[in-house]
Amino acid sequence: MNEKGILMVISGPSGSGKGTVVSCLTENTDFVISISATTRQPRDYEENGVHYFFKTLDEFGDMINNDELLEWASFCGNYYGTPKAYVEEKLAEGKNVILEIEVQGAHQIKKLYPEAALIFLVPPSKEELMDRLCGRGTEDEDTITRRLQRAEEEIKFLPDYDYVVVNDYVDKAAEKIMDIAKSEKMRSYRYKNMVEAFE
Amino acid sequence: MNEKGILMVISGPSGSGKGTVVSCLTENTDFVISISATTRQPRDYEENGVHYFFKTLDEFGDMINNDELLEWASFCGNYYGTPKAYVEEKLAEGKNVILEIEVQGAHQIKKLYPEAALIFLVPPSKEELMDRLCGRGTEDEDTITRRLQRAEEEIKFLPDYDYVVVNDYVDKAAEKIMDIAKSEKMRSYRYKNMVEAFE
Repeated sequence: MNEKGILMVISGPSGSGKGTVVSCLTENTDFVISISATTRQPRDYEENGVHYFFKTLDEFGDMINNDELLEWASFCGNYYGTPKAYVEEKLAEGKNVILEIEVQGAHQIKKLYPEAALIFLVPPSKEELMDRLCGRGTEDEDTITRRLQRAEEEIKFLPDYDYVVVNDYVDKAAEKIMDIAKSEKMRSYRYKNMVEAFE
Repeated sequence: MNEKGILMVISGPSGSGKGTVVSCLTENTDFVISISATTRQPRDYEENGVHYFFKTLDEFGDMINNDELLEWASFCGNYYGTPKAYVEEKLAEGKNVILEIEVQGAHQIKKLYPEAALIFLVPPSKEELMDRLCGRGTEDEDTITRRLQRAEEEIKFLPDYDYVVVNDYVDKAAEKIMDIAKSEKMRSYRYKNMVEAFE
């Protein structure tokens, strides 16, 4: 039997509560979150190899050229990417690895790892989404409207994913993701050796 | 969201303990097992519509011609098949429906219902399989050897299935099948309506 961990890509529209669910998972299970490489400056509290792998632009360019990144993108003038080595090392240790990435990156991952489980996290309803976006209380009406429109656009990518997890309660959503991992571990491709074991 | 039940095909080689696991599921959950149609004579204790739908050869022929069977096969001169109406009715009620059928039938089902979960139940090891086949104590050595050979042939169909469930303990195997059902209920094709709900 294949003892490798499951590669789980988690995406979700603005207001889906992605970050909270992923934190809940990494704090309460042995799921590990992939550490991104970035060219942006570390903030005061950020440690290299914990929050990010901090790279110079040259180093990041080398990682791209040497095919050391599973996916990468630029955002606000900085580069962000998923280092292959870290992910593969953790999967080989049997750990389930979470990539919290956007739709584009999710597509890239599925091409490289067809067996990855692509999970789309969604708020339970449009009303709840509105409440969440307003509830932060820090944004003006325009910002809320813009975020709502973005969420409506983002949710259209739902069919590109393997699974949909409705985030009604954070702990329940985390449990559902654990159920998906359990079930993915029973996929028949992981048991091909078993046929020989019975010969 | 799509509230239909999950169609679960359970196959497994001789000695995998299929029957026991399926009984455990139907006794302890609201999973229902599909009732087969057959042309064979009812035994004393068997009730029509409970153990089987008993049919004459003509009636069974009509069911084939009217496309009322999901799959069918003949065995020892009798016909056996899975009536479509019963399965679809239960799925529509939101019940998970189990079909305990052979590899051929499993292929037929997957063609008709690509979203069906094909589960292959296996004994944990060849040693355990030997023990189980011998343990019944009712068969002679030749019969055991023949059944072992058959199991070895049957296990080669493992890659044709979506999932492999190792039957080490009956209750654990039943739980694993419940986990698969939970996870299959989160498949994105079941949530297509959600995209519109957010428009």
